[in-house]
Amino acid sequence: MPPSRPAGPSVVTGGAGAIGSTLVRALLERGATVRVIDNLSGGSRTHLPGQGTAPGLTLTEADLRSPDSYADDFRGASEVWHLGAIADVRLGTQDPRIDLENGTIATANVLEAARRHDVPRVLYTSSSTVYGRPTVFPTPEEYGPLLPESLYGGHKLAAEGLVSAYAHSYGISAHIFRFANIIGPGMTHGVLVDFFEKLRRDPARLEVLGDGKQAKSYLRTEDCVAGMLLARERAIEPVNVFNLGTRDRTSVREIAEKVVRAHGGRARIEYTGGETGWTGDVPQQLLAIDRIVRLGWSPSGTSADAVDRTITEMVAARRAPP
Amino acid sequence: MPPSRPAGPSVVTGGAGAIGSTLVRALLERGATVRVIDNLSGGSRTHLPGQGTAPGLTLTEADLRSPDSYADDFRGASEVWHLGAIADVRLGTQDPRIDLENGTIATANVLEAARRHDVPRVLYTSSSTVYGRPTVFPTPEEYGPLLPESLYGGHKLAAEGLVSAYAHSYGISAHIFRFANIIGPGMTHGVLVDFFEKLRRDPARLEVLGDGKQAKSYLRTEDCVAGMLLARERAIEPVNVFNLGTRDRTSVREIAEKVVRAHGGRARIEYTGGETGWTGDVPQQLLAIDRIVRLGWSPSGTSADAVDRTITEMVAARRAPP
Repeated sequence: MPPSRPAGPSVVTGGAGAIGSTLVRALLERGATVRVIDNLSGGSRTHLPGQGTAPGLTLTEADLRSPDSYADDFRGASEVWHLGAIADVRLGTQDPRIDLENGTIATANVLEAARRHDVPRVLYTSSSTVYGRPTVFPTPEEYGPLLPESLYGGHKLAAEGLVSAYAHSYGISAHIFRFANIIGPGMTHGVLVDFFEKLRRDPARLEVLGDGKQAKSYLRTEDCVAGMLLARERAIEPVNVFNLGTRDRTSVREIAEKVVRAHGGRARIEYTGGETGWTGDVPQQLLAIDRIVRLGWSPSGTSADAVDRTITEMVAARRAPP
Repeated sequence: MPPSRPAGPSVVTGGAGAIGSTLVRALLERGATVRVIDNLSGGSRTHLPGQGTAPGLTLTEADLRSPDSYADDFRGASEVWHLGAIADVRLGTQDPRIDLENGTIATANVLEAARRHDVPRVLYTSSSTVYGRPTVFPTPEEYGPLLPESLYGGHKLAAEGLVSAYAHSYGISAHIFRFANIIGPGMTHGVLVDFFEKLRRDPARLEVLGDGKQAKSYLRTEDCVAGMLLARERAIEPVNVFNLGTRDRTSVREIAEKVVRAHGGRARIEYTGGETGWTGDVPQQLLAIDRIVRLGWSPSGTSADAVDRTITEMVAARRAPP
C-alpha cells in the first residue's frame, strides 16, 4: 500500500464545495474511501461523482453545528479534511454569529468528533486573512502578530488555535493550510463570480468595489489540492502550517478588464473608490510559498494564468449550461 | 479631566478575580466608575472594595456565557476589560468544552455586547500560551506561527483573533496583553497555590510534576495592572499587542525549594519526571518585553523577587487567616 493511501476512510467536511469536491475526486483517484459531510448550503451534490454515490464515496447531508448528525462518519476514519465553512468573507461583518457558529464552533465540533473517534490526522483549510494587513510581502508562515481584519479571518485564526491545541493535547497530527484566493470551477462567490453576475444583470456597466488597486494572488483549485496532498505525505511535524498561493498577484482592475473583455468588451468599469472593497477587506495579499515549494510543490502557472483559465471556463459554462 | 480617566464607566469581566480585583482598585483610584461582571466561580466578593458595593463600583453576578444577564452593564461604558476566563490551564484538556464556552464563546459574547452598545475600547488579557513552544527566547510579540499546545492557549489565540476582527470591523480600539505567569494575593490556582496546598495535606512530602527544570517568568499582579494601564494611555494603534512579564525566569525546582523553606524546610521534594508538568504544559517561557518597556513600563523586580514576595504573603495569610 503506498503511503498516500490512508488505511481508513477520509472524512471531508465541505466536500461538496468547489475546493472540497476537487479534493474528493483526487482522494478517490488515489484509492481512498471518502465520506463527505456537507449541508449543501454553498456546495452541491452535482459537484460530486455520481452526485455523491460513486463507488467509495458517501455524502452525509448535515450541518457542522449539529455534531450528532454526522458523528458516525468519523468511525474508523484515518483523517479528516475540514473545509466546511461559510466561504463569503463579507457576510460575517453583517452578522457576527455566522462565522462564530459556522467557523469556530463548527471546527470545535469537528475536532471533538475526531478526538472521540481517535482520528489520527486533521487537515484544516485556513486563509491568508489570518495575517490581517501584514507589513511583509510575500508574507511567510512565521509572520506575526496575527491581527485579522474580518470576522471571517478572526474565526480562521480561532480555528487554527483549536486545531493546534487539539493536535498537541491529544496526539493528533495536524496540517493547516493558509490559502490565497482559490479559483476554479464550481465557485459560488468571489470577485469573478461577482463580476459575471453584475454583467449578467447590467451588461453595460461593471461596478467595482474600491479603487481597483487591491491586488491578490489567485491559485487554481487543482493546484491547491495537489499542494495539500503533497504536504500530507511529506510534512511530518506534529502541526504543519503552509501557505498556498502563487508568487505573483493580480489587481482587481486587471480582473475587471479581463472579465469585461471576455464578456464582449462593451461594459464601462466604474470604481466606487477607496483602498478596500468592503469592511474587513485587505488591499494587498501575497503569500510566501517557499516552505511548500521546498517540499516539491509549485503552482502550475501565475496568478494571471489562473484568472485567465477560470474566466475561459466561466464563459464556456455560460454558453453551455449543464 | 486627565486622559487616564475615561468618560464613561469601565466594565471589568472577571473583576472579582485576583488580577481583576487589583485592576478594579486601580481604576477606582483613578476616579473611574467600575462595573464588575463575574460569576464568582474563581473570583470572590471579598476581593472587591466593600464586597463590590464601594462608591463608584457595582458587581453583577453573571456568567459570560449568558449575555442577556449582563448586557445592561455595557450601556454607556467607555471601555471593557475582558479578564473573565477559567484560569486553570489544566482543566481544558479534561473537558474541551470548558475553554470553548468560557473562553472563545464568552469572548464573542463580550465583544458582541461591546459592539451593540458602541463601547469604543476593548482590553483583552491573553497569555504566553498562545506562543505554544516557541523557538525564540525571549519571545517577541511578532513571533509566529502561533501554535498553542493547551486547549486554554488555543482558546486564548481564538479570542485574540475575534478581538482583532471586531476592532477592525467595527472601529473598536483594542489592546491585547499576553501575560507571563501573574502571581500575587488572592490566587486560586497556579504552582504556588498547588505547592502550599500539597504541603498542607502532607507536610513531609512535596510532589512536583515534571523534572523541575520547567522555567517561566513570574510577574506581580500590581506590575501587570500598571503595565496594562500604561499601555491603555500610550498605545494608540487600532490593535495593540503587548507581552507582560519579567526579563528573567524561575525554575519549578527553585520555587519548590523556596516553598519548602518557607514551610519549615522539612518536606522532601519528589519529581514525577518528564519535561512537562501536564499535557499542554510548556517547559520554557520567557517573553520579550521591550515593546512595553519602550512605553515607559518596567517590572518592579525580577521573577525571583515576585516569587519571594508572593510566598511571604502566602505564609503571612496562612498565619493570619481573614
